[in-house]
Amino acid sequence: MSRIVMKFGGTSMAGIERIRNVAERVKREAEAGNEVAVVVSAMAGETDRLVQFCREASSLYDPREYDVVVASGEQVTSGLLAIVLQSMGCKARSWLGWQLPIRTSDAHASARIGTIDTGTLLGAMAAGEIAVIPGFQGLTEEGRVTTLGRGGSDTSAVAVAAAVKADRCDIYTDVDGVYTTDPRIVPRARKLSRVTYEEMLELASVGAKVLQTRSVGLAMKERVRVRVLSSFEDARNDDGHRGTLIVGDDEIEEAGMERQLITGIAHDKNEAKVTLVAVPDRPGAVATIFGPLADASINVDMIVQNVASDGKSTDVTFTVPRAELARTLDVLEKAQSTIGHLSVRHDTKIAKISVVGVGMRSHAGVAAQMFKALADRGINIQAITTSEIKVSVLIDEDFTELAVRVLHTAYGLDSEGEAA
Amino acid sequence: MSRIVMKFGGTSMAGIERIRNVAERVKREAEAGNEVAVVVSAMAGETDRLVQFCREASSLYDPREYDVVVASGEQVTSGLLAIVLQSMGCKARSWLGWQLPIRTSDAHASARIGTIDTGTLLGAMAAGEIAVIPGFQGLTEEGRVTTLGRGGSDTSAVAVAAAVKADRCDIYTDVDGVYTTDPRIVPRARKLSRVTYEEMLELASVGAKVLQTRSVGLAMKERVRVRVLSSFEDARNDDGHRGTLIVGDDEIEEAGMERQLITGIAHDKNEAKVTLVAVPDRPGAVATIFGPLADASINVDMIVQNVASDGKSTDVTFTVPRAELARTLDVLEKAQSTIGHLSVRHDTKIAKISVVGVGMRSHAGVAAQMFKALADRGINIQAITTSEIKVSVLIDEDFTELAVRVLHTAYGLDSEGEAA
Repeated sequence: MSRIVMKFGGTSMAGIERIRNVAERVKREAEAGNEVAVVVSAMAGETDRLVQFCREASSLYDPREYDVVVASGEQVTSGLLAIVLQSMGCKARSWLGWQLPIRTSDAHASARIGTIDTGTLLGAMAAGEIAVIPGFQGLTEEGRVTTLGRGGSDTSAVAVAAAVKADRCDIYTDVDGVYTTDPRIVPRARKLSRVTYEEMLELASVGAKVLQTRSVGLAMKERVRVRVLSSFEDARNDDGHRGTLIVGDDEIEEAGMERQLITGIAHDKNEAKVTLVAVPDRPGAVATIFGPLADASINVDMIVQNVASDGKSTDVTFTVPRAELARTLDVLEKAQSTIGHLSVRHDTKIAKISVVGVGMRSHAGVAAQMFKALADRGINIQAITTSEIKVSVLIDEDFTELAVRVLHTAYGLDSEGEAA
Repeated sequence: MSRIVMKFGGTSMAGIERIRNVAERVKREAEAGNEVAVVVSAMAGETDRLVQFCREASSLYDPREYDVVVASGEQVTSGLLAIVLQSMGCKARSWLGWQLPIRTSDAHASARIGTIDTGTLLGAMAAGEIAVIPGFQGLTEEGRVTTLGRGGSDTSAVAVAAAVKADRCDIYTDVDGVYTTDPRIVPRARKLSRVTYEEMLELASVGAKVLQTRSVGLAMKERVRVRVLSSFEDARNDDGHRGTLIVGDDEIEEAGMERQLITGIAHDKNEAKVTLVAVPDRPGAVATIFGPLADASINVDMIVQNVASDGKSTDVTFTVPRAELARTLDVLEKAQSTIGHLSVRHDTKIAKISVVGVGMRSHAGVAAQMFKALADRGINIQAITTSEIKVSVLIDEDFTELAVRVLHTAYGLDSEGEAA
C-alpha cells in the first residue's frame, strides 16, 4: 500500500465528462489499495474568466479580494470531483484550503505555503476516504483566503504530498512527460523516464514548461518524488513506468541507469539582450547597473561581462524578459549618470539555447562540443553563460530551431524509432 | 446615523457594469453616514450553471458537496463588489459565510440560519468599513459549507439585519415594490407603500413572488423592517419612500394610515386539485389521507371537507403542486385500502385566487363580496378556504385573469392614474 497524491490540471477538469475520466483514474488507484489525495485545478478558462472580472472591476484591485474571487474556480471542481467519485461508489470528500487548513503567507495573489494541518486529513485517508483538495488556494494567519499565483496548483500538490509524506506525487497534465527537447521542433525528441530536480528546474525555467518552477523547487527541498504524466493516455495500459519521474540525483545513481551526458536541450525566445557600451571599469560599477533594475523588479537572466581590454572600460551584456525591455531602457536612462556608460544597445531578435544535464558535472568538453556543433552550421554565438549543469548561449532568433536540432543530434539524444 | 443592510439579487449583480451601479448605491448610503452591510447574490444564471454541473455529475449528488459548488457564485460577486467599492474610494471587505461565521443547521442545500457572530463585523462597520457578505451560504457546526436553498440570499439579508440590529433591510430587486396584484394582468395595479409581514406572507406564498417566503417569516419573527425596491430605478430620485416597506401591523396603525380593507389579490396556477370520492366518515379518516402524503414530503395546500350528507361518507378535496400530482396519485392508490375511498378525481386546469388584507379581520362581508363579484361574471367557485386575513377560491384556470381584474376593481384597488 502506498500513499499517493494525484494532481489534475485545468484541461483535465474541463467539464463533467473529463472529470469522470479523472475520477476513473483516481478510483483505480484507490482500489489498488492506495491512500489517495487529489489536488485539482479550476476548469480550463475559468481562472482567466475570474481574473478578467477583477481587472474589469478595477485595474488596481485589492489582492485580498482578488483571491476571494479567483479561489472559487478550484472550489467548484473539488466539489464536483467528490460528487463524481461518490457516484462511482468511492468514499470521497472535498477539503477546501481554509478547511484543512493550508496555511500560507499573506502575500496575496502569490502566497507561499507554510504548514498544512494533516491530522484530520490523514485520519480520513486511512479510513479509505479519498481527499479532494482544491489547488491554488490557502489561508492566512488572519483567516483570509489566499492564492499561490498562476500554476500554483502544482505547488499545492507537492506541498500536500510533502505534508502527508506521500510515496509519490503524480501530476497529470496534457503532455505525457518531460522530453529531451520540444517535440514540435525535433520530432525525434525522446521522453525522459527520469530527470533530476536540478535538471527539471533548468529545463522548466528555460522553456520546457511542464511544471510550475516553484513546485519543482519545493519537491527538491522536501524530497517529494514527482511523476509527470498525461491524463489523456489510456490509464489501463499503465505499467507504473509511464510519464517522467522527477527525483533526486542519488536515486538516479542508485537505479544504476546508464547516465546520459546531456538530459535535454531547451530554448527560450522570450528574452531581449541589452548591452551597455563602455561602462567605466571600477569597483561597484556592476552594482550601479543591477541595483536600479532589481529595485524596479525587473528579472535579469544572463549576465556577461568581460575584463576591460583597455583597462578603462568594458561592455556589460544581459538579458531581460522581452515584455520588460521598455521599462529596462527607461531605468537605465535614468541611471545613466551614476552608471557612466557611453550608450545602450538592445536586441529582441535573439534566442537562448541551453544544454542541460547533471552528467556534465563530471565530464569536460560539453561546452566545447556545443560551440563546435553550432559553428559547423555557421551559427554565431553572441554570449555564453554556464552553470554546473547547464551551458546557455544567445544566438540570432532565426537559427533557434536549427540550433536545437543540431545539438539534439550532437549529444546523441535522437530517438531511434519513428518520430513521436 | 442608521445601520442598514442592503441586499442585491442576481440581476443587479450580473456583470461588472451592474456591480458598479450597485456600488454607487451602496456608496451613497455610506456617505450619508450610515453603517452599511451589503448582502449579494451570485450573478444571474450562475447558480443555475453550478446546479447543472452537480446534476450532470450525479443525479444523486451529495448535498454537502453540492453546497461547496453552488456557494462559489456568491463568493465571486462579494469579492468583486468589494473591489469596485474600493475603487470608488470606499473602505470595504468581503466576509464569507465561514469567515463571520454564519452558523446554520446541517440540512445541506436547505439549511436554516442559527446564529451569526457579529463582534468583528460590527467593529469593522463602526470603523466605516462596508461589509460585503455573500448571501445563500453558511457553515455547519462541523465546519462544512451550507447553502440555504434557492432564493436564500433574501433570508441571509434579513438574518444579518436581525443580527446587527439594523434599522432597515433594503432588498433591491428587479421590481420596484409589492403591488396590489400582478401588473401584467391588471395594468392599473397600485404599488403598496406599506404592507404587513402577514399580508406579505400570504401574497408571496400565493403567487406574488417578490421575496423568498422564509425571509418574510424571519423578518416577522425578528421584527426586521424590510423594504423592497428596484435596483434599476434612478437612486438620485430616492426620497426615502420608494419601494414597499414591510413592517408590523402596529407600525402601520401607528402611521395612522387610512387602512384599505384588502391589500392585494394573488393568483396561483401551479396547483392541481384532487378529490377523494366517498371517504368513510369515521374518526381518523383524514389522517389516513394526509399521513402518507406528508411521509412522501408532498406539500398539501387547500383542504376542503364537508360534513357527510348521508352520515356515512364524504368527499375530501385538496390541492397539491402540479409537479407533485403524479406522485400524489401514486401515494393515494397505494393507501386506498386504508383510506377506503371509492375513487379519485383530479384536475390540473384550475387556479387559486386569493384576496389578502389584515383589514378583513375587523370587517364582515369580505368573502361575500368576493363570491358576488365572481358570480356576477359567471365564474364558478369550486372550493373555498379562509384564514384570518385571506379568502381563497379555486376556479377554472381559463378565468384567472378575468377574476383577478374583477376583484381588483370590486375592492377599490385600481389606481386612478394611467396604467403603470
